[in-house]
Amino acid sequence: MKVIVIGATGTIGGAVARALEARHDVVRASRNTSPRVDMDDPASIGALLAGTGPVDAVVCCAASGGLSPLDTPSDEDYWRGLQGKLIGQVTLVRGALAHVRDGGSVTITSGRFAAPIPGSSLGHLVNAGLEAFVGAAAIEMPRGIRLNAVSPGWVRETLLDLGMDPAGGTPAADVARVYVQAVEGGARGRTLAV
Amino acid sequence: MKVIVIGATGTIGGAVARALEARHDVVRASRNTSPRVDMDDPASIGALLAGTGPVDAVVCCAASGGLSPLDTPSDEDYWRGLQGKLIGQVTLVRGALAHVRDGGSVTITSGRFAAPIPGSSLGHLVNAGLEAFVGAAAIEMPRGIRLNAVSPGWVRETLLDLGMDPAGGTPAADVARVYVQAVEGGARGRTLAV
Repeated sequence: MKVIVIGATGTIGGAVARALEARHDVVRASRNTSPRVDMDDPASIGALLAGTGPVDAVVCCAASGGLSPLDTPSDEDYWRGLQGKLIGQVTLVRGALAHVRDGGSVTITSGRFAAPIPGSSLGHLVNAGLEAFVGAAAIEMPRGIRLNAVSPGWVRETLLDLGMDPAGGTPAADVARVYVQAVEGGARGRTLAV
Repeated sequence: MKVIVIGATGTIGGAVARALEARHDVVRASRNTSPRVDMDDPASIGALLAGTGPVDAVVCCAASGGLSPLDTPSDEDYWRGLQGKLIGQVTLVRGALAHVRDGGSVTITSGRFAAPIPGSSLGHLVNAGLEAFVGAAAIEMPRGIRLNAVSPGWVRETLLDLGMDPAGGTPAADVARVYVQAVEGGARGRTLAV
């Protein structure tokens, strides 16, 4: 299969690209690669899809978002996480309708919190919104194309990078296996937690 | 209590305003009233809150959204329902932080589908996003202010207006009672279904 992995320079995306390369032809895309894509920039998403030509799968692992306190003074600052992770990933799904081959798949990334924490309101909105979107949009996907989300919790390598206790994290290679299942398996409209 | 009801010219909002007026001082606001507010226009939300002065509760029933097929050609058309219902209501909650008295409340409106139907992907995203937002943002509300959502299903009067079988609908007066409970009760961070 030919698979685009967006966010391939990140911790999860890199692991996903390596796992898929064992069996598939992988196009690695990110803000720092060629082809280049910036999930904050809808035009760059369309350009990536058009430039790559028909593919069997698109996987997006580029979905970071910081905390956004409810009383953030500026609207622009509060909503900063909405554009790339939510608008960008939905734009990717819509764009993929014309570029993914019959029976292919699109896999996006949500995320989760153990419980609400201060600053997490926009993150909760984005993650839950994406997961509900995937469940509903899956029935509108044409030509047998499957749509799913992966919801990663803390990743071990990220905790180590942040100087935090890695005990509660999942190794990126284990997270990557769930993305591979989304690409190679039969799930439709589901959020796969890991 | 002094309560702003936004969407007070609508089926649900009108019923909520009537129910609250039995015991409270109600300010009715909509696109067609004075004070005027348009949930698509963040500046009008700020102007309403500033112009009304301190209140004990804000209730938003102005949250309509049509179907939005996944393959809608124009991005602008696909996202049309996002601005007022999702961005507008979150903007209202953020704006209310400075205008609702200690121990007051903010109640917004989500909605629900019995199951995914074609065109419902954005509606699912918006409803689930708002409900997750309310659950997380509730812990950041200052001075004891409570935040909740009401999730109405089909309303009997709306089904009648559309020429549909009203048997599956809830009378607007019954829906309104749930909004009144959100204002007068003790719920925090919850989505009240009706």
